[in-house]
Amino acid sequence: MFTFETKLRVRYAETDQMGYVYYGNYPQYYEVARAEAMRNLGMTYRDMEAKGVVMPIASMQIKYIRPARYDDLLTIKTLVPEIPGARMHFDYEIYNESAVLINKGSTILAFIDKLTGRPCQAPEWFVEKLVSFAK
Amino acid sequence: MFTFETKLRVRYAETDQMGYVYYGNYPQYYEVARAEAMRNLGMTYRDMEAKGVVMPIASMQIKYIRPARYDDLLTIKTLVPEIPGARMHFDYEIYNESAVLINKGSTILAFIDKLTGRPCQAPEWFVEKLVSFAK
Amino acid sequence: MFTFETKLRVRYAETDQMGYVYYGNYPQYYEVARAEAMRNLGMTYRDMEAKGVVMPIASMQIKYIRPARYDDLLTIKTLVPEIPGARMHFDYEIYNESAVLINKGSTILAFIDKLTGRPCQAPEWFVEKLVSFAK
Amino acid sequence: MFTFETKLRVRYAETDQMGYVYYGNYPQYYEVARAEAMRNLGMTYRDMEAKGVVMPIASMQIKYIRPARYDDLLTIKTLVPEIPGARMHFDYEIYNESAVLINKGSTILAFIDKLTGRPCQAPEWFVEKLVSFAK
Repeated sequence: MFTFETKLRVRYAETDQMGYVYYGNYPQYYEVARAEAMRNLGMTYRDMEAKGVVMPIASMQIKYIRPARYDDLLTIKTLVPEIPGARMHFDYEIYNESAVLINKGSTILAFIDKLTGRPCQAPEWFVEKLVSFAK
Repeated sequence: MFTFETKLRVRYAETDQMGYVYYGNYPQYYEVARAEAMRNLGMTYRDMEAKGVVMPIASMQIKYIRPARYDDLLTIKTLVPEIPGARMHFDYEIYNESAVLINKGSTILAFIDKLTGRPCQAPEWFVEKLVSFAK
Repeated sequence: MFTFETKLRVRYAETDQMGYVYYGNYPQYYEVARAEAMRNLGMTYRDMEAKGVVMPIASMQIKYIRPARYDDLLTIKTLVPEIPGARMHFDYEIYNESAVLINKGSTILAFIDKLTGRPCQAPEWFVEKLVSFAK
Repeated sequence: MFTFETKLRVRYAETDQMGYVYYGNYPQYYEVARAEAMRNLGMTYRDMEAKGVVMPIASMQIKYIRPARYDDLLTIKTLVPEIPGARMHFDYEIYNESAVLINKGSTILAFIDKLTGRPCQAPEWFVEKLVSFAK
């Protein structure tokens, strides 16, 4: 439906003594990819929160295929497979500099009204932007 | 088959501006739980690496049920559902101070020979310890 | 004036590809030590925030003497050298399992009124607890 | 002597419940700035390690002037005030999008021969690159 690519350079801080990126840092890479995909749609996650909606993660799946190394310039492809309703689905594919797929993941995010703390639907203005891009 | 419980106090560094533990910090909590479970079996992951075997993560699943907050003293239950062969399966359940289940996850780890970089079977001494505990 | 010791086990996540604890993780260790020192005084930093005072860091100094390694059980000594006024000073010394001093640091924290966002004095109840312990 | 500027976008993961960047994440920002400054000199820190020299941190100082917020696009100015000998000095200044100085820091790094684990002088090829840029 909607895809977007972003680049990310591996930090030394993100490696561990195995010499690779620590497995717990990939969710942070997904966050960056998701934020840049939203920015490309003409809004930001910061705006979303400013407008009173927060998007906590409900679930996540990760498949670690090959290691990423320090200073690698990774390409992260973000995919939004469907129009969000009460939840939003993102898929991620991470490629190394040789264009080899090294990591795959997906997250499901909820829409929560910041004021009430209760689940809500994806804001209309957000869905409209997504739909206009997906055409 | 084998279960173990460990306690972990949420650090300020682990929260984000939503006021909860950042979703990307749970893999680190699983790592701590796994390491303490192994220590309880009479060995350590450090020993495992010293004996030439590293255990990178192959896949992970997380279900975020309720948020964890700063300074919460969490209880993490680690479960090893089956005798490891070429891979090892861990399940995790995280409970808050009110004994409410707030997070569930699972990871599959590979056994890799550090010298050759190739997959190997779980070391015999390790399997024996697991089996003796599971009785 | 006031000193307190706490133990902390190095996580795999905290190492980097040099095989040691990443230099950027020590501030997090200081945070844990500080929080446990305050808990030992009969309050918590969580209480402090609940009572409307936040304590952001104004400055920090670190001296890295020897590396810390994965799974090391570190001892962190926290020192409060003086009664806090508008600012609070903490010193830290980190020792490895051989009781060797491997890291020294200090931080200065401000007291900020959460409501107004303006600097304030250390709460009286907090100073009283510190003074009663220091006797 | 030598200065370089790099941009860095604040991640959600890097904020804490105070709503600002956690104080312990600035060393990671310095690492990125340092690495990009070295890349701009025509080499990378990855090369340095590949050539057998690692550069652990010996000491660090940070002054926290104003908070950084989620999604801020920070500008980090890196300064190398002097030709390195057995140690290398880096200074950092971080500016927000309004060009306000929000953070100042400095680090001293050692040069260590990876093989022997002993301190060494800055490699000649590295010093030559620095000198040619500084002219």
